[in-house]
Amino acid sequence: MIFEVTILGSGAALPTLRRNPSAQYINCNERHILIDCGEGTQNQIRRYGIKIQKIKHIFISHLHGDHYFGLMGLLSTMSLLGRSESLTIYAPKELEGIIHLQLKASGHHYEFKMNFVSLDNSEITLIFEDKMIEIWAIPMKHRVKTNGFLIKEKVKELSINGEVFRESGLSLTSIPFFRKGQNFVDEKGKSHSYKRYTFPAQKAKSYAYFSDTAPVTKNCEFIQGFDALYHEATFTEVHLDRAKHTLHSTAKQAAEIAKTSKVKRLYLGHISSRYDSVEQHLIEAKSVFENTIIVEDGMKFYV
Amino acid sequence: MIFEVTILGSGAALPTLRRNPSAQYINCNERHILIDCGEGTQNQIRRYGIKIQKIKHIFISHLHGDHYFGLMGLLSTMSLLGRSESLTIYAPKELEGIIHLQLKASGHHYEFKMNFVSLDNSEITLIFEDKMIEIWAIPMKHRVKTNGFLIKEKVKELSINGEVFRESGLSLTSIPFFRKGQNFVDEKGKSHSYKRYTFPAQKAKSYAYFSDTAPVTKNCEFIQGFDALYHEATFTEVHLDRAKHTLHSTAKQAAEIAKTSKVKRLYLGHISSRYDSVEQHLIEAKSVFENTIIVEDGMKFYV
Repeated sequence: MIFEVTILGSGAALPTLRRNPSAQYINCNERHILIDCGEGTQNQIRRYGIKIQKIKHIFISHLHGDHYFGLMGLLSTMSLLGRSESLTIYAPKELEGIIHLQLKASGHHYEFKMNFVSLDNSEITLIFEDKMIEIWAIPMKHRVKTNGFLIKEKVKELSINGEVFRESGLSLTSIPFFRKGQNFVDEKGKSHSYKRYTFPAQKAKSYAYFSDTAPVTKNCEFIQGFDALYHEATFTEVHLDRAKHTLHSTAKQAAEIAKTSKVKRLYLGHISSRYDSVEQHLIEAKSVFENTIIVEDGMKFYV
Repeated sequence: MIFEVTILGSGAALPTLRRNPSAQYINCNERHILIDCGEGTQNQIRRYGIKIQKIKHIFISHLHGDHYFGLMGLLSTMSLLGRSESLTIYAPKELEGIIHLQLKASGHHYEFKMNFVSLDNSEITLIFEDKMIEIWAIPMKHRVKTNGFLIKEKVKELSINGEVFRESGLSLTSIPFFRKGQNFVDEKGKSHSYKRYTFPAQKAKSYAYFSDTAPVTKNCEFIQGFDALYHEATFTEVHLDRAKHTLHSTAKQAAEIAKTSKVKRLYLGHISSRYDSVEQHLIEAKSVFENTIIVEDGMKFYV
């Protein structure tokens, strides 16, 4: 199944012509998700050929403008394009009032239903679940109430190897056992290994989005062995004091989180506009965690 | 003196990759003005090399999102870049609450002062004046309270031709008369024509911004002989019913306003995303008013 991330904005508070403010689009098993929605996100969605109306879930990490000033424009466009399907917005509770005040001033109303899920950030919380995936909000450490998000595929049922199964003449009642990876004991007391009748398991993938935040070592326990971690790296070590003061991270600090968490790959974004090049970010991060990639707007990766 | 307009957004409610939503920057005698501020305006300001901190006056025509969703991002950027100089925002009164609610949610505050001038739209009103220019808000006809804006240079004082004046031996008390274009009568009762002692007058220029609006013939009396009129032309005649229903204008209707107003040039913008080409807009407008230009993002013109 597909689990891919498209970076719509990789910049920080001051956008540049190269880096839009934060936003990313995630297709996880055909669940279409937007995380953060900085100004201009709807144009990035157009630019990178994403189908705007497929998005059903929008997660807003926090209410600094570079993470949500594009939301009203996106909602307005969804409405103008005739959306009828409901949309769920997961965000700090103040966002609902901000949206409604602007909607009222415009004299418009949307034909689609908006559901609001109010995010506290006191503890890690399961905020969405269906048969294929789970999404968790996880507290970040920033100047305002901020959540990161974990998107995890559920452990997948095994696929039956039809040919082998039919030849065996085994009862259909064995199938649910095999799908779950359990052996089946027939009426004669004979055990049949699930491995013989199924294809090898597809691993359940996992992705974490940590932005904006100072490095929080405690959070590493929740993302042990994750396939991919997107972590903010607003600064390099030369601006460590500034990072501490503003509760952001340096590239090196983000890499330390990745190392402690034993994730497979680290993606760094939310790059401050003060840097003309990301070379230093990369050197510092790779000195701690080799498998690091600095993202760019428009970059797409598979989890 | 300079009086120039830069089009930052020429699109309508649905932005496209070619046309940003409404915004234009005006330098009128070194008064730096922004009219409307659709999503992405701050990036357009960057793209076209405008100095963001020079802007001191922001005029918002109405509270449909395509005219102001870029304002919060712009203010935030002004603040992050260290602005200390005050800024005046002229807009429907609800905007102040919208800004403050978002500012509060962010936990930020701006070091610069924001002055709000609340715009009603019951009648044409002088909203800004200094020794060089005047700005008027003028009621439009749209689905929510909407104002157009008139920017007018004041009649300029004449410049004294120093060489001719010195040779004349006339008293310095004559100068204020000449500057105002009045003849001066000396102590012997002799009249001296101002034309001899001054350079020819520079004409005071005038610009009107009409968007969004249905065509309002009554407004023509206020812009008689204006140098330039920017008028919205969301639709062509094939969508006349749609224009009437949504209180927008067709290109032809805008041209009729230009003709009745005897303006010198007509600029058409706020083009709906449904049109791949503006050829039909131009044909229809020119059939009524020859001196018509369809604007594009990034276009700059002198009033």
